[in-house]
Amino acid sequence: MKNRFIVALVLIPALSVVALSQSAATVAARKYRKENETKLIRNYLELLSIPNVASDRENIRRNAEYLRKELERRGLAPQLLTPGDRDAPPAVFGEYKVPGATRTVVFYAHYDGQPTDPADWTVTTPWSPQLLTEAIEKGGQKATMPSEVPLDPEWRIYGRSASDDKAGVFTILNAFDALKASGIEPSVNLKFFFEGEEEAGSPNLRAVLTKHRELLRADAWIIADGPVHQSGRKLVSFGVRGVTSASVTVYGANRDLHSGHYGNWSPNPGMRLVKLLSSMKDANGRVLIEGWYDDVEPLGVLERKAIADAPKYDDDLRRELGLAESDGNGRELLDLLNEPSLNINGMKTGNVGALARNVISSKAEAVLGLRLVKGNDHWKQLEKLRKHIVSQGFYVIDREPTSDERLKHPLIAKFIPETSGYNAQRTAMDLDVSQAVIEAVRNASGEMPVTLPTMGGSLPLSIITEALEDPALITVPVVNYDNNQHAADENVRIGNLWDGIEIIANVMTIR
Amino acid sequence: MKNRFIVALVLIPALSVVALSQSAATVAARKYRKENETKLIRNYLELLSIPNVASDRENIRRNAEYLRKELERRGLAPQLLTPGDRDAPPAVFGEYKVPGATRTVVFYAHYDGQPTDPADWTVTTPWSPQLLTEAIEKGGQKATMPSEVPLDPEWRIYGRSASDDKAGVFTILNAFDALKASGIEPSVNLKFFFEGEEEAGSPNLRAVLTKHRELLRADAWIIADGPVHQSGRKLVSFGVRGVTSASVTVYGANRDLHSGHYGNWSPNPGMRLVKLLSSMKDANGRVLIEGWYDDVEPLGVLERKAIADAPKYDDDLRRELGLAESDGNGRELLDLLNEPSLNINGMKTGNVGALARNVISSKAEAVLGLRLVKGNDHWKQLEKLRKHIVSQGFYVIDREPTSDERLKHPLIAKFIPETSGYNAQRTAMDLDVSQAVIEAVRNASGEMPVTLPTMGGSLPLSIITEALEDPALITVPVVNYDNNQHAADENVRIGNLWDGIEIIANVMTIR
Repeated sequence: MKNRFIVALVLIPALSVVALSQSAATVAARKYRKENETKLIRNYLELLSIPNVASDRENIRRNAEYLRKELERRGLAPQLLTPGDRDAPPAVFGEYKVPGATRTVVFYAHYDGQPTDPADWTVTTPWSPQLLTEAIEKGGQKATMPSEVPLDPEWRIYGRSASDDKAGVFTILNAFDALKASGIEPSVNLKFFFEGEEEAGSPNLRAVLTKHRELLRADAWIIADGPVHQSGRKLVSFGVRGVTSASVTVYGANRDLHSGHYGNWSPNPGMRLVKLLSSMKDANGRVLIEGWYDDVEPLGVLERKAIADAPKYDDDLRRELGLAESDGNGRELLDLLNEPSLNINGMKTGNVGALARNVISSKAEAVLGLRLVKGNDHWKQLEKLRKHIVSQGFYVIDREPTSDERLKHPLIAKFIPETSGYNAQRTAMDLDVSQAVIEAVRNASGEMPVTLPTMGGSLPLSIITEALEDPALITVPVVNYDNNQHAADENVRIGNLWDGIEIIANVMTIR
Repeated sequence: MKNRFIVALVLIPALSVVALSQSAATVAARKYRKENETKLIRNYLELLSIPNVASDRENIRRNAEYLRKELERRGLAPQLLTPGDRDAPPAVFGEYKVPGATRTVVFYAHYDGQPTDPADWTVTTPWSPQLLTEAIEKGGQKATMPSEVPLDPEWRIYGRSASDDKAGVFTILNAFDALKASGIEPSVNLKFFFEGEEEAGSPNLRAVLTKHRELLRADAWIIADGPVHQSGRKLVSFGVRGVTSASVTVYGANRDLHSGHYGNWSPNPGMRLVKLLSSMKDANGRVLIEGWYDDVEPLGVLERKAIADAPKYDDDLRRELGLAESDGNGRELLDLLNEPSLNINGMKTGNVGALARNVISSKAEAVLGLRLVKGNDHWKQLEKLRKHIVSQGFYVIDREPTSDERLKHPLIAKFIPETSGYNAQRTAMDLDVSQAVIEAVRNASGEMPVTLPTMGGSLPLSIITEALEDPALITVPVVNYDNNQHAADENVRIGNLWDGIEIIANVMTIR
């Protein structure tokens, strides 16, 4: 990371001048962090040790209560926001009014994390956060908290949500503390909104926002989530992809059968599933489902320029990820992110490994993940998928087949669409606040950030624009891109946490 | 089952006369069983409660020791046979010499069972055998041992190896006890051979047989394993299919990736796997791999007649299994069993269900099961499969790819062939002993059994013919065909255990 940073300064000498004049917010954030490094990391490890899968309601409430107290301690008038009429992980809300400020900005992060199988983790388990001297892939070793500061910024913290997205919560709260410690008043009224079920698809967010729309009134939302650019340069993003998914189950006989006594005769649902799935994409990853790309809203001139100006990093990325070729017929990653995607998130029939056995399973299941771009409707995109399955000869239902249905239809698919999907969102890049945030990140990081019309990941931002009065939504990610987010061995680079505090402190003092 | 039996008698009046004259062995076996029903089942539940996966060496030895004591108690001079030079589940051997007998017959069964995931079981766990009043699918309820006899023959015992193949051990030992109790001397010298790693592919059987070939000298082996015919009629089989398998792993990036940030660009190994697997078979289950069917040795006239004479049961079977169509373009099950098969035994990438997440997994794996027929060589068949993967553009290796290989080859497959596969085996149906065994089963069951040149399942019989002096190998299955063998909820119908004792007692007294 360090080397890349230096290279970037050398390559862009015009910007290096800017890098030398630090803003008051940057100075304050750095000073505060240097005086408190050990304490900040200890507190963060404490937060990371609370299990945070949205469906684990008991623990998710422990997280919410922890954050409520953190806001209370700072005098930020915390409230736990819920839809009221049903059980849901609460959003933790807080507020800080600045005398004379005319603008209000909400700082968003989510405190829940993706479900994960502890058995897949290498150096620790998901909620026993562990310091390493570097990334595992680079030979990082387990370490304990050093008695001396400064901490090495290349060190990592491994644990679920170390990056996604308790890092957002961490940087927001510490940026606020840093400004306060230096007596710097934010330039805008601050609101804090920490969501508790983003990784579960934000099923109650719309209801929470609608119920509390007065409380949440703001000119802009700053979304502290997602990784910085693969080149290591900071990033400001003006949109996110939408997301949804569907599970597809296909059937063979009504019970598992011995593969010897019935092999060649009883249909293998695994084979039926692979034939169905392989019909959905070509060898280059292009989706073959009818109309898949039809609704995509074309990018404007400014958005296309932002993509063209972004660092060319695909070759490096392929090398790092061990890929001889990427999908997309030679097109670049940042270009391809502006198209809807289809991914096999998971697939299972029978068993592999030690539990493998000679059996024709009675069913085979896949979970398909869809990413959506501006113009796509998530329900419409799922319907294209469903129709494709029908077009492949399947009788498609939304429950287990009955005995009669089994005897009538050779090919049966159970298709269960996700009910909590949402659409993509995009904020105009030429708004005043958009330009002010770009400038704030440039102040903090000393170089022009990469700006993107959309990130690859998804956040329920369309829900916010739809439920509230269309505030500007600007995503300011801080964590390292090689953070294994959503997978086992999720981690954050400590240097990125430090940078994040400076970035958010600058955004809290935009002009 | 009962109804089918009656129908068969009505349809074949010539045989019903035979059915009325019971052999001395049948009378003895029935008498003994009726006097001891509760005790026999209690003992069987004890045997079934010892976990018996071959790789679980501690428990597999407990099974062997249990059986050694059973043989000792009967004065059968037990020995535990091992290859000697390595750790292996022992085969339990015993012997009973009959003065004046000129022929020697080995009675074979295996006491190990298929690995299984306890979470998949419905009414009990694999090694907590449970009585049910009927099959689960037919509404069977949990039951405890009744105080009154006779037991209802429709009752089932659920548990791993209840059918496959501790039922073989059970019927052999109780048939011997029954003859002894009535003072009937077997017509042949008896040897007992209970294998402990058949479900693991019998990796040490060849070494054990070769080492102990003098001890195991015999004219014929009777294999008590596998289910009776789907019609409910008894079965004598003169061959078995061979079996082997291979695991295939394909790769994407060298770590799991966020499906949003990299979707459309980073190749999905799940998609690569489904494209590879779907190239292997057509929609009717015909294998498309080059030369797959080339080596098959055609059936002789007598074998074809046996298949033609077997009951037509495919329609009933489809109805019972909930299948609108079977594979094979309209050909019958018994016909298709004489061809080599290819089955997706298991397949996995990422997760489905509660652990599903939005990730591009770094790899996808499948385990492919192959069944072989007379003429196939298991190594040659695996090599055809490997060549097919190469023909699909994959760089095929037998270990994890190196970083250099990842960067050089867009498509990489790890191909791990099973090392303990074996070939098919077939005994001539016109041998004296073949005809005598058919007659013995007819005596016991009161009707002509179905006779088949091969069963669908596999047993390491080719290893026996290759290691010993080519004894006749005749399979005499006893358990119900709907026993879920190799799957969760394995079970045996108690009536089939009773029939099995009578059948084996008749085989021990062949003329």
